[in-house]
Amino acid sequence: MVFRQRGYHATRLEDIAEELGMQKGSLYNYIDSKEELLLAVVTVPAAQLLESLSTLSESDLPASEKIRLVARSHARVVEDYLPYVAVYVQEIAGQDHSPEWRERDRAYVRQLSAIIDEGRQSGLFDSATVPVISSMALIGALNWMTRWYEPGGELSAEEISDRIASGFLAGMLVRGRASASAPRDQG
Amino acid sequence: MVFRQRGYHATRLEDIAEELGMQKGSLYNYIDSKEELLLAVVTVPAAQLLESLSTLSESDLPASEKIRLVARSHARVVEDYLPYVAVYVQEIAGQDHSPEWRERDRAYVRQLSAIIDEGRQSGLFDSATVPVISSMALIGALNWMTRWYEPGGELSAEEISDRIASGFLAGMLVRGRASASAPRDQG
Repeated sequence: MVFRQRGYHATRLEDIAEELGMQKGSLYNYIDSKEELLLAVVTVPAAQLLESLSTLSESDLPASEKIRLVARSHARVVEDYLPYVAVYVQEIAGQDHSPEWRERDRAYVRQLSAIIDEGRQSGLFDSATVPVISSMALIGALNWMTRWYEPGGELSAEEISDRIASGFLAGMLVRGRASASAPRDQG
Repeated sequence: MVFRQRGYHATRLEDIAEELGMQKGSLYNYIDSKEELLLAVVTVPAAQLLESLSTLSESDLPASEKIRLVARSHARVVEDYLPYVAVYVQEIAGQDHSPEWRERDRAYVRQLSAIIDEGRQSGLFDSATVPVISSMALIGALNWMTRWYEPGGELSAEEISDRIASGFLAGMLVRGRASASAPRDQG
């Protein structure tokens, strides 16, 4: 994928057209800029992520389990769309970019914070937990995978997300609750 | 700071010269490109971070305390050099950029992983901990602060780093050890 090889900023729409075996003119029939192309590619996984987060939010699972599953979906998207998500994380996420994408980012943080707050209110998570900081720490740890995760390594993206989520949950759970236990079969 | 207002890629060396009240020609006496300028600015805090990490590595503190202090130094650099570190994290960190900066990045991960491994070997941290994953999760959570942290908010960067480090440590500590307790005075 030419964005990842050359870097997003050094890539011209012509390079993408060449990679796709198209004339630049034909590519312009579909998209206006490389940014539009990038956003078109990440629209589907972004919508999936938000939708799975909404479904989880409304489910009856304990907050700790919801968070573990959110981390898994996030890691799966990182794995499945790696070069695109890498560029998205670098160029778009958490930045004042377009109102539409900013709103998606915010909706994600808001819903994740609401799950953490729910766990706090129910007494599962420590009352000192600050939901937005915890959300940002988890999102940051997962997004940073785009800088170092290599598919095909010893641990899958999902296994890595389980470890990140377990560590993260252990930091919030009221002591004595068992559901933050990490997978112990490896190490 | 013109990088943060306009974005790194939209900023020309002329804009920086203008901000500094210099002719572009004079600025070229000192630096060759905006990238060189960015790296010049972050060289000092990057060296400080690596040095404080080395000093901590060699100290007799328990691994958990070393990690808490590393997280604090990291957050302090984020706070003190925010616009520059934000650009550094976006453009340079964790990417195959220049051999010199890649080596600094790697040295940071290597030393942090060594501290985590030390905690694992001494029985303080769970034997299932994978040092490099834990390092990357912590670095990711701290670096992500450049996208959302606003100086002058309710919690300082250092307080936020304490919460991130506490959560992170709680995920690794063997149950029953007390040193992962988070500051509980706020909530």
